[in-house]
Amino acid sequence: MKSIYRLEKPVYITASASVVGHEESEGPLAETFDTAVKGDDFFGKDTWEKAEAELQRLALSKALTKALMTDGEADIILSGDLLNQCIGSAQGLCGFVSPFLGLYGACSTAAEGLMLASLLSSAYGIRAAAVTSSHNASAERQFRSPLEYGGQRPPTAQWTVTGSGAFVLSCRRSDALRASPAGAAQLPEIFEVCPGRIVDAGIKDANNMGAAMAPAAADTLCRYFEGGGAMPQLILTGDLGFEGSEILMEIMADCGADISDRYNDCGLMIFDRKRQDKHAGGSGCGCSATVLAGHVLRQMRLGDLKDVLFLGTGALMNTMSVQQGADIPSIAHLVHIRSSAIGEEEKL
Amino acid sequence: MKSIYRLEKPVYITASASVVGHEESEGPLAETFDTAVKGDDFFGKDTWEKAEAELQRLALSKALTKALMTDGEADIILSGDLLNQCIGSAQGLCGFVSPFLGLYGACSTAAEGLMLASLLSSAYGIRAAAVTSSHNASAERQFRSPLEYGGQRPPTAQWTVTGSGAFVLSCRRSDALRASPAGAAQLPEIFEVCPGRIVDAGIKDANNMGAAMAPAAADTLCRYFEGGGAMPQLILTGDLGFEGSEILMEIMADCGADISDRYNDCGLMIFDRKRQDKHAGGSGCGCSATVLAGHVLRQMRLGDLKDVLFLGTGALMNTMSVQQGADIPSIAHLVHIRSSAIGEEEKL
Repeated sequence: MKSIYRLEKPVYITASASVVGHEESEGPLAETFDTAVKGDDFFGKDTWEKAEAELQRLALSKALTKALMTDGEADIILSGDLLNQCIGSAQGLCGFVSPFLGLYGACSTAAEGLMLASLLSSAYGIRAAAVTSSHNASAERQFRSPLEYGGQRPPTAQWTVTGSGAFVLSCRRSDALRASPAGAAQLPEIFEVCPGRIVDAGIKDANNMGAAMAPAAADTLCRYFEGGGAMPQLILTGDLGFEGSEILMEIMADCGADISDRYNDCGLMIFDRKRQDKHAGGSGCGCSATVLAGHVLRQMRLGDLKDVLFLGTGALMNTMSVQQGADIPSIAHLVHIRSSAIGEEEKL
Repeated sequence: MKSIYRLEKPVYITASASVVGHEESEGPLAETFDTAVKGDDFFGKDTWEKAEAELQRLALSKALTKALMTDGEADIILSGDLLNQCIGSAQGLCGFVSPFLGLYGACSTAAEGLMLASLLSSAYGIRAAAVTSSHNASAERQFRSPLEYGGQRPPTAQWTVTGSGAFVLSCRRSDALRASPAGAAQLPEIFEVCPGRIVDAGIKDANNMGAAMAPAAADTLCRYFEGGGAMPQLILTGDLGFEGSEILMEIMADCGADISDRYNDCGLMIFDRKRQDKHAGGSGCGCSATVLAGHVLRQMRLGDLKDVLFLGTGALMNTMSVQQGADIPSIAHLVHIRSSAIGEEEKL
């Protein structure tokens, strides 16, 4: 059974874009998003679902613009989201002319999209886009209860991020150089990936996704190290939040791999835990997608960060499966991103 | 923009399996399914959703057995279904140890899974499984109304198939030969694929999916022919049903490509239109998956059919998007399957 795919031709993340809503625009990473809209989170639409679709449209448009590409120059678009039947992706990306592959990886979708996009790009020499989104209001009413209900949330509950992240990938260095922003010293590239397995840790509490997902993250991480994967500069999970992050570090320490000095979680980074009342942290497909597309890739382009294991985490449940008393199986997909220096001669 | 992926190494469908429920087991293809269970369609479970998950578990187990593989010998499993957040796949395939990629392609999922599985298998030399399912009772109550309500259906409505199809793919001819059933003369292989685009034809009627999906099928088919694709022996769509099939043939004729002498639709094949009251025909992820996994691939193995364009069709909507008055955008993914003769020396 193949665990790790080491790409013969690494694939460049030529451009990335992020669009977020009100709460995220008040958080510590506000400055790193391309578009941070303060207000009612409707983004000019009349329903939360259409607003989420609009987020994806905005994010992919921005990413293509940053990649200096027109619509249609992407050979394929991969996308998914948390809405029933992924209508955020279908409606949001309906206007783009490129072929489309729908994904469902719950909150791991950013990693699943990057993984498949890089595998296809490396093997078939194509340009691929990966997109995902989540919206606090559409997710809360679908999975738990409408915001207007004002239900009290337990301390382990997380806050679904309103945001969309989009990435454009290419195996051509010239594409990456052309799109590289002024001041950038490095080009981020995906050079190995490790798809996750479904792990059922027996958790049934829909308000404790971190506990459900942490064992899946540990499973992927352990298989990665067992398969000869190197310890990176930063291990970055998608949305384990406070609870799940603690559990992951404990499991890894028990397995003999102390990761606590090089670990962070997008769900812990996007909100200020003290200032913003977000309980166990951010979550949702849009959480890891916007933090990676904004803050993390910017740091990599500037050379402040050179080697990131990005581990998208997803809980595979729906409202009815929780009502039926089923466990919440989870999954975590791993994408290893490193940066390569832009040579002096390449800057010309 | 790349439309058609011609595989350098064709990928064999080494084994396929199908499991269906009561209505399908009374239809004209009953004998071609591996498992056709007459009865209440609960498959030993206590909810429709768990029954659908069980269908996937049974189908993949059977396909692996027929491929002479044990659990874990598949390098990756790709799956998706129609249930909210694809829990049929998550719960049904939770017990398998192979890495998992979740897809959402609505009723086009069988084709999307085969497409991605063959692209990955060809490029990375892996063994991949593709699975999908639908269940009449879980789908009807989720998308329209519970069966117990007994709502009247318009003539254009289709009948969601209760069934799951699973496919095991490998680029190694030896795998295909080893798993080839007694009496088989040919090995079916995927040699080119064409991913679909999202097409919005402005249809808003959730009881007329055929009309929503036919323009997407035509778009993919036209791009395929424009890209130099050859006219096959059989063009087989997933679940356009009576209404959609007529529309597709009309659009194609208008475009100068009369396909009526070589066209069929899985939704028209799985039920007997006169004897079984299924209105415009079968639909659902399980429709195309079980017809392909059973009847069509059996014909290909026997040499009765040698060249099939399989065109999975999917409508990208959910209950809420219909309630909100949104259009139903659609997609169609194309997988071209041909068969190669088993040589006399290979039979030893």
